[in-house]
Amino acid sequence: MPEPQQTPKTRSLREHLNRIIFEFDTPAGKAFDVALIVVIVLSVIAVMLDSVDAISIHYQHLLKGAEWLFTGLFTIEYLLRLYSARQARRYATSFFGVVDLLAILPSYLSLFLPHSHYLLTIRVLRVLRVFRILKLARFVGEAGTLRRALNASRYKISVFLATVVAIVVIAGSVMYLIESPEAGFTSIPASIYWAIVTLTTVGYGDISPQTPLGQALASMLMVVGYGIIAVPTGIVTVELNRAHQQSLLLAKCRSCGKEGHDNDAVFCKYCGNALGEAGDG
Amino acid sequence: MPEPQQTPKTRSLREHLNRIIFEFDTPAGKAFDVALIVVIVLSVIAVMLDSVDAISIHYQHLLKGAEWLFTGLFTIEYLLRLYSARQARRYATSFFGVVDLLAILPSYLSLFLPHSHYLLTIRVLRVLRVFRILKLARFVGEAGTLRRALNASRYKISVFLATVVAIVVIAGSVMYLIESPEAGFTSIPASIYWAIVTLTTVGYGDISPQTPLGQALASMLMVVGYGIIAVPTGIVTVELNRAHQQSLLLAKCRSCGKEGHDNDAVFCKYCGNALGEAGDG
Amino acid sequence: MPEPQQTPKTRSLREHLNRIIFEFDTPAGKAFDVALIVVIVLSVIAVMLDSVDAISIHYQHLLKGAEWLFTGLFTIEYLLRLYSARQARRYATSFFGVVDLLAILPSYLSLFLPHSHYLLTIRVLRVLRVFRILKLARFVGEAGTLRRALNASRYKISVFLATVVAIVVIAGSVMYLIESPEAGFTSIPASIYWAIVTLTTVGYGDISPQTPLGQALASMLMVVGYGIIAVPTGIVTVELNRAHQQSLLLAKCRSCGKEGHDNDAVFCKYCGNALGEAGDG
Amino acid sequence: MPEPQQTPKTRSLREHLNRIIFEFDTPAGKAFDVALIVVIVLSVIAVMLDSVDAISIHYQHLLKGAEWLFTGLFTIEYLLRLYSARQARRYATSFFGVVDLLAILPSYLSLFLPHSHYLLTIRVLRVLRVFRILKLARFVGEAGTLRRALNASRYKISVFLATVVAIVVIAGSVMYLIESPEAGFTSIPASIYWAIVTLTTVGYGDISPQTPLGQALASMLMVVGYGIIAVPTGIVTVELNRAHQQSLLLAKCRSCGKEGHDNDAVFCKYCGNALGEAGDG
Repeated sequence: MPEPQQTPKTRSLREHLNRIIFEFDTPAGKAFDVALIVVIVLSVIAVMLDSVDAISIHYQHLLKGAEWLFTGLFTIEYLLRLYSARQARRYATSFFGVVDLLAILPSYLSLFLPHSHYLLTIRVLRVLRVFRILKLARFVGEAGTLRRALNASRYKISVFLATVVAIVVIAGSVMYLIESPEAGFTSIPASIYWAIVTLTTVGYGDISPQTPLGQALASMLMVVGYGIIAVPTGIVTVELNRAHQQSLLLAKCRSCGKEGHDNDAVFCKYCGNALGEAGDG
Repeated sequence: MPEPQQTPKTRSLREHLNRIIFEFDTPAGKAFDVALIVVIVLSVIAVMLDSVDAISIHYQHLLKGAEWLFTGLFTIEYLLRLYSARQARRYATSFFGVVDLLAILPSYLSLFLPHSHYLLTIRVLRVLRVFRILKLARFVGEAGTLRRALNASRYKISVFLATVVAIVVIAGSVMYLIESPEAGFTSIPASIYWAIVTLTTVGYGDISPQTPLGQALASMLMVVGYGIIAVPTGIVTVELNRAHQQSLLLAKCRSCGKEGHDNDAVFCKYCGNALGEAGDG
Repeated sequence: MPEPQQTPKTRSLREHLNRIIFEFDTPAGKAFDVALIVVIVLSVIAVMLDSVDAISIHYQHLLKGAEWLFTGLFTIEYLLRLYSARQARRYATSFFGVVDLLAILPSYLSLFLPHSHYLLTIRVLRVLRVFRILKLARFVGEAGTLRRALNASRYKISVFLATVVAIVVIAGSVMYLIESPEAGFTSIPASIYWAIVTLTTVGYGDISPQTPLGQALASMLMVVGYGIIAVPTGIVTVELNRAHQQSLLLAKCRSCGKEGHDNDAVFCKYCGNALGEAGDG
Repeated sequence: MPEPQQTPKTRSLREHLNRIIFEFDTPAGKAFDVALIVVIVLSVIAVMLDSVDAISIHYQHLLKGAEWLFTGLFTIEYLLRLYSARQARRYATSFFGVVDLLAILPSYLSLFLPHSHYLLTIRVLRVLRVFRILKLARFVGEAGTLRRALNASRYKISVFLATVVAIVVIAGSVMYLIESPEAGFTSIPASIYWAIVTLTTVGYGDISPQTPLGQALASMLMVVGYGIIAVPTGIVTVELNRAHQQSLLLAKCRSCGKEGHDNDAVFCKYCGNALGEAGDG
């Protein structure tokens, strides 16, 4: 939608709201964020308690009222955010913009679909805002390191996941042939579910092989899973280590301005001049 | 078999087929590969649904027909691949050649052995071809890194596996003596199965120690398993790290011929001459 | 409290007690610490045995007497520690000071609250003193390395834990909607409990999905958990590696003052002078 | 025992036996080792089959006969080893010497103690000799790397194990107070067993918390276990990496003979002379 022409006054009001709602460098902004997180946590707890029969029987009206109160508050907050955001469309399509919308939709949805209000627990994602109040930059930086590490290893992880899918499909089919439906292997999808439960070492035990041959094959699958668990860990560790080492390579040459020198280098490897005390890692 | 004398026309037809079936750098080749993967996924889903009783009762004829349709298609494709491959024998004995054959055999086998058609899910391995359509080189490179890492640590992994086998055989025998058959320890092989389930931290719970002494020994086995899970992870991580560092050491100095320069180095750190564009990682 | 004026004699007695109780560089101090650990282990075993019905029925009086004997001994010891500590307040608020107090409180508490004496097993924390008798410095150093590694990665771990909480709350709510109470998903908190049991790959199996849709979602959660287990391992490994490398960088050149030499270097690699015995790692 | 005076002939016989039994660089020695491993594997399988009721009923005499045949062979082999070993006492007290003795004792023991012959599966340890036939040096080297890595981290692992023991004892005691015996928490030792099953993520499910408070505490224990699993993995990975890097530091200076130079060093850091092409890593 095209941004409406703004008079100085509305701009000042929007600007004021923006600083309270989106920033936290003013006392009002900080108070707003702290209050918001308290309300979010309370609303998630209310939804959870509503699902516990022993509690919801006695406090049905209280919990229903609380749900609509929280939904009303979050709806007002969402509209204010849309109004005061510098780029409304960009906010609405951002991660937190979508979460803010999803955090109120289930309530209205529950008017048509019973039980769908339990999806309100998606509000827990809003709590991730808490990182903004705590040392923001630090946390975002660390999350960025994790994200970069996962991103850099996405090809390796794709190859790994494809291998896992192939293993569980074939293992599930073979076990379906070997084991009987009485042991829980009622269909190939159910057997694949069992293979995933086994390969990830979760092991519920609701489906488990009963025949010696099935147990032997399951043992092999477990040992394979034991070895395969090492692969994602190795990938992520190497990537985290690489990201860590790159953040160390900050020393800058005063002559040519290039970074990336070894920790103990004395001369710049790009221009040959002495590195001096310009930068310090 | 000796290659038959080829007239220019058959060679051109074979060449044409070869480019469509084995390559994906032409629009026709790309379309063929995409269609192939869709058909493979559909055929695996059909086999899976056929194993679900609630579904197979109602759609028995449809699923049976689909299975034979897919088998027919894959049989024609296999014969065309054999015909158009530059080295038919090499294709037939390659990984994908064997998989392509195994992907049609169970259908014909099911004429004699009932249920064996469930093994058709081995077709899922054919989906691994999907990596050829996506950025091939990148994926194959990453798979190569993983394979090299696993290969380089095969001695350490053999020592590790031998230790695990020795632990589970001895732990299983001791538990067979301590625990009663009622708890599930009906024989030494069953007890070894339990030891593997425990050491890999799968823990179904279908067999579990009931006596205090058995539980104490099981606890020790779990703590050992907890420590032992660290070994393959450590091995793979170190090898992945080594493989990663080796891929960095590719640039070669044209003046002195030494390798081992940093990725971003401009001058050789051994002789001081410019590195130039001789080698590139 | 203000330290009372000390006569030489009391100071000498307190000093003597202090050396026996807090130090272990004298034969008496060593004997005291060894005896203490034996008594602690015996007292923890006594509390454990008291909880086993088959044993407590026959030896009730013996175990009750032992408990009060150990409590009496530890009470006297605690008072002596308070008396002889150089800074009584600092001891009382230290980790071991609080543990020493908690190790006697449950006995007195059990006079009012039955069964609370089972909390006496907190005495096991007192056994951690054993590290003082063994090579103290080495162990404290290693514990320090572990603590520093965990401390350095506390931001990454916070981001990780917040992600895990968000995943289990949302996964639990969705599964509560999909699965029936008969399968164990009786409320959202119970479903979140199931999600934690699944994501950590514990997998008791007391609650497990029964519907195909629930099993499919559970499978996805397991694979996510399989990948997520790699993150804390990667973080801790990188931090341990960093801590290890930092402990290597201790040798300092007396000529140019630079650090970062290899452990076995004899000459400074920056200025060429002998490193000498100035610093030692 | 004092070595008896040897005539040239007995020495030659002993020497001959020694080369066959202990070495594998002659055809006879190789054949002996291969035959030995086949017999060991057969004997372990015989003991396992003997424990399977369905099999032992039909082949009781055959399996009994096989057991005594194998025991007889191994007894003769043990005596020959004792006779031909260059230092009989050193062999008898070595790892494989003790295993060779333990591999025959249970048979004789079973004459007095029924069922003790199942301990014959300890013979599986004898199979570890297989590494001698395959590329010995390589395997022993890798086993040595693993052993050194574990050895170097024994202090960190001790601190880690002590922490784990403290956690499971306290968690077990608290759960014993919270949960009822009906849920399986019948005593503190049983609850500690549950805590170990949970912390190691095995999760049998034979004992599992039923109350909301118990489930909340169990969830915390699982998340702690999830984080704690990272510690041994991190320790072993760092040590394996260190061991790997040390094995790279083999380049030797021709002037002073010292090793341990960086991979890319040109001048010896100990004596200052050029390293040359003497050694290559």
